Amino acid sequence: MRSMQIALLTLATALSAGTLEAQRAGEPVFPFSTEERYDPSRIAPYRGTHDAIYRHIDANLEAHLGNIQRWLRQPSISAQSVGISEMAIMLRDDLRALGFQEAEVVPTKGHPGVWGYYNAGAPRTLVIYMMYDVQPVEDNWRVPPFAAELVETEHGQAVMARGATNQKGPERAFLNALSSIIAVDGKLPVNLMVLAEGEEELGSPNYPELVDRYEARLRTADGVFFPFNAQAPDGSIAMSLGVKGILYMELESRGGSWGGPTQAEIHGSFKAIVDAPAWRLTQALASMTSRDGNTILVPNYYDGIRPPTFEEQRLVNALAAQNREAGLMRAFGLERFIDGLSGRELLVREYYHPTLNINGISSGYAGEGAKTILPHRAVAKVDSRLPMGISSDSAMARIRRHLDAQGFSDIIIRQLSGYPAAQTSVEAPLIQSALSVYRKYGITPTVSPRLAGSAPFYQFTERLGLPLLFSGMGYGTGAHAPNEFMLVRPKSGSRVAGLAEIEKSYVDLLFALRGASTRPRR
Amino acid sequence: MRSMQIALLTLATALSAGTLEAQRAGEPVFPFSTEERYDPSRIAPYRGTHDAIYRHIDANLEAHLGNIQRWLRQPSISAQSVGISEMAIMLRDDLRALGFQEAEVVPTKGHPGVWGYYNAGAPRTLVIYMMYDVQPVEDNWRVPPFAAELVETEHGQAVMARGATNQKGPERAFLNALSSIIAVDGKLPVNLMVLAEGEEELGSPNYPELVDRYEARLRTADGVFFPFNAQAPDGSIAMSLGVKGILYMELESRGGSWGGPTQAEIHGSFKAIVDAPAWRLTQALASMTSRDGNTILVPNYYDGIRPPTFEEQRLVNALAAQNREAGLMRAFGLERFIDGLSGRELLVREYYHPTLNINGISSGYAGEGAKTILPHRAVAKVDSRLPMGISSDSAMARIRRHLDAQGFSDIIIRQLSGYPAAQTSVEAPLIQSALSVYRKYGITPTVSPRLAGSAPFYQFTERLGLPLLFSGMGYGTGAHAPNEFMLVRPKSGSRVAGLAEIEKSYVDLLFALRGASTRPRR
Repeated sequence: MRSMQIALLTLATALSAGTLEAQRAGEPVFPFSTEERYDPSRIAPYRGTHDAIYRHIDANLEAHLGNIQRWLRQPSISAQSVGISEMAIMLRDDLRALGFQEAEVVPTKGHPGVWGYYNAGAPRTLVIYMMYDVQPVEDNWRVPPFAAELVETEHGQAVMARGATNQKGPERAFLNALSSIIAVDGKLPVNLMVLAEGEEELGSPNYPELVDRYEARLRTADGVFFPFNAQAPDGSIAMSLGVKGILYMELESRGGSWGGPTQAEIHGSFKAIVDAPAWRLTQALASMTSRDGNTILVPNYYDGIRPPTFEEQRLVNALAAQNREAGLMRAFGLERFIDGLSGRELLVREYYHPTLNINGISSGYAGEGAKTILPHRAVAKVDSRLPMGISSDSAMARIRRHLDAQGFSDIIIRQLSGYPAAQTSVEAPLIQSALSVYRKYGITPTVSPRLAGSAPFYQFTERLGLPLLFSGMGYGTGAHAPNEFMLVRPKSGSRVAGLAEIEKSYVDLLFALRGASTRPRR
Repeated sequence: MRSMQIALLTLATALSAGTLEAQRAGEPVFPFSTEERYDPSRIAPYRGTHDAIYRHIDANLEAHLGNIQRWLRQPSISAQSVGISEMAIMLRDDLRALGFQEAEVVPTKGHPGVWGYYNAGAPRTLVIYMMYDVQPVEDNWRVPPFAAELVETEHGQAVMARGATNQKGPERAFLNALSSIIAVDGKLPVNLMVLAEGEEELGSPNYPELVDRYEARLRTADGVFFPFNAQAPDGSIAMSLGVKGILYMELESRGGSWGGPTQAEIHGSFKAIVDAPAWRLTQALASMTSRDGNTILVPNYYDGIRPPTFEEQRLVNALAAQNREAGLMRAFGLERFIDGLSGRELLVREYYHPTLNINGISSGYAGEGAKTILPHRAVAKVDSRLPMGISSDSAMARIRRHLDAQGFSDIIIRQLSGYPAAQTSVEAPLIQSALSVYRKYGITPTVSPRLAGSAPFYQFTERLGLPLLFSGMGYGTGAHAPNEFMLVRPKSGSRVAGLAEIEKSYVDLLFALRGASTRPRR
């Protein structure tokens, strides 16, 4: 998963009321058994106070900011193999300096991972997911992208650099919080396992390998935390408890024994007597959806979807009451959603129905004016977002079977990625702890059962059976874009947390988790 | 029309035998009323001898070659507005020097035309179509593209330059022939009207304006000649007597009131709740053809096609006897034609059925790997080749009506070009004269009723009612590509005409036309 995507996707987690799910021919219906709404405002604010630690944070804030800047000044561009091993070593050394008993760089087939273990002798153990790599940089930054300068923004003072919010800023802020706890208390309130990768921006190709290596130990943990600047500029937080899976494919038609030119494009006038890969791909794609492109006609594609649980129904009901469609439509430049949906119907469609989406399609000439060719090849990049209950393997098998049955056995499918959905229960102690901490700071997040988007969180949730929290206080923007920043000192009156408050909230989260009652782990 | 296309398209003019036309659901059938084959070998070779003129050509060949080089050394790149007015003036001055009583540069909304009139006091008048512009040049030429150097090729000595064969070489060779006739006889055997343009490589946008200006005078002519290096490397000539019309369109879907993002791409996961322009275009396109992409399902699209005439049936029967499918399949990298067609069925499909061809389709992300977006726009470049009887306006109206009826009224259609087919009768004196001249040089061309491709020849044939000949001896290659050349002195044993023989054949053509009996003009 790309953390930028998460930031974007959380935009869509709260939409307005509606009582009946839309009936759409060919798509499943998921009747709700409750109209109850999950109400996070009933969660008691976390009441622990850790004043000595907070004072330590305040007293050392310049040094803490310096740690963040030190990380940001070390480039670690995974796509260009720039600074990778230096950054991995820097992370390892920082863990050692904090007192992690285990801290090592872990080779993989790609860029190395970093493992760390802090044994606090505590009953609870938290896994910290980290990514230490960043995106490449663009030309048009207002400051050098690896200088980590402090700049004034409309929201207040920020540190601006590649990686400032995605993801080194919040990650190193979390380590700062650890250092203040240790400085004051001598040890952490929970045990920690850090498992970091340097290939998140490449799609995490070797993270499963890292999980393999530590699987038995990871399974003993109580949950996984991914530090994240999750606040919007107004201070609000939208929390999601899961993600959809994904099957990302390239579908290609090339000339061959079925017809069409095999070597190169030919003159377009010969369409009269020569089959065309561009038409073949167009027709193959068209066979997969309803005329409006919105319902999947691949047989059995909707089979096996796990309907909304009672708990999820309550979450959806609460979201539906928030009337946020207009904002989302404005953000996306939309005049309507599919079928004019709104409220609960819209949310159920978003979270519980699989998609087939054309990310790109290309064939032949796309420049200005007219060029008259019959292309020998056509490619579409198609992804399917998969709700709980549909594996990427079964989705792929259904699509292949459909194309073969429709006479398109010559259409090539190349899978670029595929993994299942992930879900964490709102009742998990980790999630309840996070909500109680947010409540302490006066924030009542919206909570959605999942994002429409995807991330390979199944590694933790489905494979290891751990609850996963990807959230946190703080605001940043510009991930994968110029002028990326993380807000450090919000302007007066802002409801966004500054660096000190972010670190204090991380302190609170660890102590809250230590004290949380034992509940079902997912 | 692009003359390069003609050279390519003539490849396809002769294919092998078959007796029944294929029956394909939804497409028309054109029963033949004759099995007779048109036999150009029964045409008597042209018997005129013009030895004094031939000797003059031989004696002045270096100067004639120099004229060609002078033209080639003057760049005239219409797309870049390089050397245009200089070349127009050079052509005008050359016409004046030959004794044209009228010779002038004619302004248009774009690059100027050139008009010339040579009054020989002769009963017959021939229009010479010329283009004086050339394509831009590429980086990887073996000689400077405007040096017009003489180089050795596998076929013999050639002049290599941008425009050498497309189209300055054969055009200036034709003027060389005129100069030798005038030098020996004092005047030409026919009157000539030259109407040249400097925008052929831009799609001839202002040629209709030039025709408007001289329409009354052009109508009095006996035919139109476009000098052309039409020989293949083996010396053979494939002559075509017509072209299809064309409708070239961009079809676009954009987000709007029907749905879909209107401003920019959005995250692909939102396909669950947002309509997709890429699907909409895919489904709109798919609605227009049969599942195999080969039969047009737009209602009435095949209505009005003028079936093969008796004369054309004889031409098709002759071509079908030549068994050239294998060569064409090799040239195009094909394993089969549509429906496994061959022989007459294949030719009829090629010449008498309209097409819908996707020249290009583009939407969203086409780079390496996965990017997860829902594009806000999708565009296809679609052309339809139109046989005699379907106008581009009626084709457009039928497509628009179909899309509207299918619920795709939001699909935008932008017409990039559109004009009807053109046809000349093989019995036209101009065509018979050309065939008799070829026969004199030992060449019996294959004659097809038309090309599958398009050119705006309707300006002459349909609008002015004039027969059109686009052919000629000589060989050249590399149009629109590096190292363009025209063969000047073929290697020993070659059956391709060298420059001297090309010019002599032009002399013969003009005298043959003077002596040809009067026949129906088309």
